[in-house]
Amino acid sequence: MRGMPTPTLRDVAEAAGVHAATASRALNPATRGLVNADTARRVIKVAETLGYRPNPIARGLKTAKSGTIGLVIPDLTNPLFPPIVRGIERVLETAGYSALIVNTDNDEKRERAQVESLLSRQVEGLIVATALVEHPLLEQLRREGVVMVMVNRRPDALDIPAIVPDDAAGVEMAVRHLVSLGHRRIAHLAGPANTSTGVVRARAFRNTVRELGLDDDPALVTICRYWTEDAGAEALREMLDDGLDFTAVVAGNDLIALGCYDVFGERGIDCPDEISVVGFNDMPFLDKLRPPLTTVAIPHQDIGAEAARLLLDSLADPDRSARSVLFPLSLVVRGSTAAPRAV
Amino acid sequence: MRGMPTPTLRDVAEAAGVHAATASRALNPATRGLVNADTARRVIKVAETLGYRPNPIARGLKTAKSGTIGLVIPDLTNPLFPPIVRGIERVLETAGYSALIVNTDNDEKRERAQVESLLSRQVEGLIVATALVEHPLLEQLRREGVVMVMVNRRPDALDIPAIVPDDAAGVEMAVRHLVSLGHRRIAHLAGPANTSTGVVRARAFRNTVRELGLDDDPALVTICRYWTEDAGAEALREMLDDGLDFTAVVAGNDLIALGCYDVFGERGIDCPDEISVVGFNDMPFLDKLRPPLTTVAIPHQDIGAEAARLLLDSLADPDRSARSVLFPLSLVVRGSTAAPRAV
Repeated sequence: MRGMPTPTLRDVAEAAGVHAATASRALNPATRGLVNADTARRVIKVAETLGYRPNPIARGLKTAKSGTIGLVIPDLTNPLFPPIVRGIERVLETAGYSALIVNTDNDEKRERAQVESLLSRQVEGLIVATALVEHPLLEQLRREGVVMVMVNRRPDALDIPAIVPDDAAGVEMAVRHLVSLGHRRIAHLAGPANTSTGVVRARAFRNTVRELGLDDDPALVTICRYWTEDAGAEALREMLDDGLDFTAVVAGNDLIALGCYDVFGERGIDCPDEISVVGFNDMPFLDKLRPPLTTVAIPHQDIGAEAARLLLDSLADPDRSARSVLFPLSLVVRGSTAAPRAV
Repeated sequence: MRGMPTPTLRDVAEAAGVHAATASRALNPATRGLVNADTARRVIKVAETLGYRPNPIARGLKTAKSGTIGLVIPDLTNPLFPPIVRGIERVLETAGYSALIVNTDNDEKRERAQVESLLSRQVEGLIVATALVEHPLLEQLRREGVVMVMVNRRPDALDIPAIVPDDAAGVEMAVRHLVSLGHRRIAHLAGPANTSTGVVRARAFRNTVRELGLDDDPALVTICRYWTEDAGAEALREMLDDGLDFTAVVAGNDLIALGCYDVFGERGIDCPDEISVVGFNDMPFLDKLRPPLTTVAIPHQDIGAEAARLLLDSLADPDRSARSVLFPLSLVVRGSTAAPRAV
């Protein structure tokens, strides 16, 4: 019934210039450690390109592994996570793995139950996107020897490999962009203080403001209770009600920036003419907002893919030391930022 | 470490007014058929409300079931699917099931490989969101006795239970809304003809147009090649280049409507002053577009949850006849629709 013949292990081996036995070892996480790391990487790359898919039954019979990975995310309907999940799945699929996904809604009890359920299903490792700065469950799992990779966020002082965006560099880009337009008093609506992204971005904001010699007024930083539109709107209303004077906002993420849009609508504030806003994440469809949102873009699919590769590496060699990757970001300038109105 | 005690099976039984043994049977898909259907439904409802979660290891030991369901979707990064998946997971979790998710990118070969991989992992059933009007793979799975539920779309003439939006009623609402504003020549940018949603919505459009005595010009219906922004933009450009005269567009879905926004931008067309547009789906953040998009809202989480319930029912009683559900929809009126400009 198929149009084209499915590529075989032999095709992959030939294209990669190795013996079939070597290709087989490289593509099986249980035996990958037996192959030179560069060779393994080349074989996997070729397998991805050709669309090769190992037969999980045959693999399962030989190695008695479950072939599944658990993905622990806060909420799939947050537009941040679908591209991360797709990136993860793309890499896992090529390696013959499937993903079991659970949503925790950032509820500690629920997360514990969900992770227990994943472990009871014999997942071989976890990719975790829910890390809090203090995270007793992750500490416990680490002690118990569960193989894990953090994605997007990471807990403080825990030796777990993580793939995270270079948040500090992203915030610096946002502030420098606003300064180049002429802004001097810039506010920051920070994400929750129990998340590494919230803390790192707020710290980078203060550092950049000081470095550039801007007004370093602590009142210009408000911490939002959640990473949501409502929390962003609430925080901005508070700052406006306090009579604070600022011409631009660096929002902790795009949803917080969208909350600002709600407040602009309520109070008849013109964006960008009266207040400029920069978001963070580059969610889909921001180019069609009123006004289109300037934001720091995070390559979420790539971050997911890299997290999956890192987990597969850790499964192949559980003793290797934790390696973390800071992903470079870029600023996407749209209509929500402009020079401040002349006064 | 937990704040509140986790509810036990005994708590659920007590709240539902049944013996613990009955509650246990009702909550286990393998034994649910032994319990009166209304009782089972009540117990499950109570378990959902209390947040009860069965212990999958204990269940697995007794019944030797995998406790997993396969979800087959086209692309998780299409904003339609995350809420459907969340609705599915919410119900599966309460019933002690987990979901293995695969993305097919609407590629037949890839879908076949992905479904084979799911079946090799002993999933107990499939929830499928990729149905095409003609779908040999689904026919084959049906013949092989795989338990399946379709969600969002359904194949023609296949006796598989499906949970789908009441697309025809939704299109009728959209057209009636435009007519009430004074529009008489309304175009339809239909979804692909190999999807049930595309076909059903286009048929409903023609029917409503005829019923209301509007200009039933076949040139006013263009079929888009994909459910995407680019395909929507391409189709609208074609109609405008053909010099067709219309004052409103009913788009097959929100992404196609967003494609119209791109063309409006390119050609300096004012929406809604020159052309009104209605979308379909009510994706997140449409209220913040320029202009905010009027659209037909589909309760995606509820549709997902109902699909999961239907699958659990089918697993408990494989012989019951296929039951399909048409979900009611509603129109969300925003700024992209207005009276046509006086001529």
